[in-house]
Amino acid sequence: MKLKFAPKEERFFELFDNAAKNVAKGADLLVDLVKNHDRAEELSNEIEQVEHEGDITTHEIADRLNRTFITPFDHEDIHDLAGRLDDILDNIEATADRMYLYEAGEPSPEMVNLAEVLADATKVVVRAVHGLKDMKSARRILDYCIEIHRLENIGDEQSRRALAKLFKGPDALHALKWKEIYDHVEEAIDLCEDVASIVESIVVKHT
Amino acid sequence: MKLKFAPKEERFFELFDNAAKNVAKGADLLVDLVKNHDRAEELSNEIEQVEHEGDITTHEIADRLNRTFITPFDHEDIHDLAGRLDDILDNIEATADRMYLYEAGEPSPEMVNLAEVLADATKVVVRAVHGLKDMKSARRILDYCIEIHRLENIGDEQSRRALAKLFKGPDALHALKWKEIYDHVEEAIDLCEDVASIVESIVVKHT
Amino acid sequence: MKLKFAPKEERFFELFDNAAKNVAKGADLLVDLVKNHDRAEELSNEIEQVEHEGDITTHEIADRLNRTFITPFDHEDIHDLAGRLDDILDNIEATADRMYLYEAGEPSPEMVNLAEVLADATKVVVRAVHGLKDMKSARRILDYCIEIHRLENIGDEQSRRALAKLFKGPDALHALKWKEIYDHVEEAIDLCEDVASIVESIVVKHT
Repeated sequence: MKLKFAPKEERFFELFDNAAKNVAKGADLLVDLVKNHDRAEELSNEIEQVEHEGDITTHEIADRLNRTFITPFDHEDIHDLAGRLDDILDNIEATADRMYLYEAGEPSPEMVNLAEVLADATKVVVRAVHGLKDMKSARRILDYCIEIHRLENIGDEQSRRALAKLFKGPDALHALKWKEIYDHVEEAIDLCEDVASIVESIVVKHT
Repeated sequence: MKLKFAPKEERFFELFDNAAKNVAKGADLLVDLVKNHDRAEELSNEIEQVEHEGDITTHEIADRLNRTFITPFDHEDIHDLAGRLDDILDNIEATADRMYLYEAGEPSPEMVNLAEVLADATKVVVRAVHGLKDMKSARRILDYCIEIHRLENIGDEQSRRALAKLFKGPDALHALKWKEIYDHVEEAIDLCEDVASIVESIVVKHT
Repeated sequence: MKLKFAPKEERFFELFDNAAKNVAKGADLLVDLVKNHDRAEELSNEIEQVEHEGDITTHEIADRLNRTFITPFDHEDIHDLAGRLDDILDNIEATADRMYLYEAGEPSPEMVNLAEVLADATKVVVRAVHGLKDMKSARRILDYCIEIHRLENIGDEQSRRALAKLFKGPDALHALKWKEIYDHVEEAIDLCEDVASIVESIVVKHT
């Protein structure tokens, strides 16, 4: 079904598009950061900037939600979707921050892989969220969601192996630091899956 | 009150019985595994097999839920109950997997105790879930739930002491590994308590 | 709007006042404990006592909730508010307990700061919860909530830095122990923010 949206509703889609694209931008910067440890400071600052922009979009969505009675989908779904997108970016920012703060040293190949899985997942999140504007393409939106679940499984497997390698030692403090950092990337990937679940439930309600 | 269930509704009870029994089977295998470290590989594989069977049951419950309008209790409760049972088994499987993956060595007596508390709790979960079919026995179902809460308290106390012993050292990497493993058993026990809470709320609504 | 409350409803406000004051009392004792490590045993016991008193209040709220149809605000909000207040105290008690159980030694200046932020936040929680009785002062209640969010941000920043210092080593087991302890204080502070969110949503619904 092709829904006709009023201008006020159109604005929600624009904001969600921006929020999702911003998340993907943050994830790309994180990949750059873990691959270019010498540019850590510059890239961390860029991630922080992207995170601030994300906050502004999240607040605009929340404001509009409070002032708008008729919204393109349930108030609660809009609230949750905006919240989860914001949480992904918070975890991306925390990942970058902890690497710097703990003086954790050169990222491992496992860390690079994890960041790349996250970046891939956020790119599919952009497509899934964009798809919500046109429920005619419900099948395609759900396919994006399946792809996000697939990437989350890959991320799970990779962080499982990354942790195993870390725990082999010999440096327990190094293991402690990187466990914290891996946890933030893994949380960001899990949150992409939460976004997929919210998108799925919106699609199911509207088709 | 004795409710009369239609055949479609009967099938939900069968599926929940299977799901709960499967969880208890997984917990028993975990007890075997922590007591017989030399058979770790064989028993881990069996747990993985049980976890796959659990997934199939969970999916059948979800499928039926989507296709059935009249269900023996709220859609949301069915969804949550199936989800939590599945989560218990995931954590049992993760416990076994991490012991192997981290090459964590011989399980401590504390680990054996924790696995036994979990196995005890899952046996009561089987009874509580089975009880849902006949609300006449509401009092007995609630007693099972109280027993699960009691076991969770014991588990809490045991993991608290297990962690204290672990942190005495001297091996920090060993502590890191086993903390992760203990966390999965503890989470499985906590999830038994979540199941008890869902069962309680179903009973309260139907009596 | 000034609501007129029936005597039964008045009792809910009294109980919430008690619950919140009890939380603040627990937090003050934790500050004493981290500043006076030599009186650890005595102060730990006092915290445990306060936690027991909190449990009694929580149970009375739950009992009244089950027996009362008309409540000053939504059943779910009352349930959540009582639960979160109880959780704060549980985490305060766990913090004290783990310091003792892990033989973690003298608390760091960072730990003292964190406990003080928590104590400050609980004092504002007392005011915010007390405010619920008189919605005429909605603006002031919301200001208390903003103050709690501000304190949570400070706590976040402090625990971030506390962890960074801890991970510098040299003692990995020491880091493991204190990370667990810091996590409980941080969780207690986060829960103050959850209380603020519940209070905010109650105020929004009633003004």
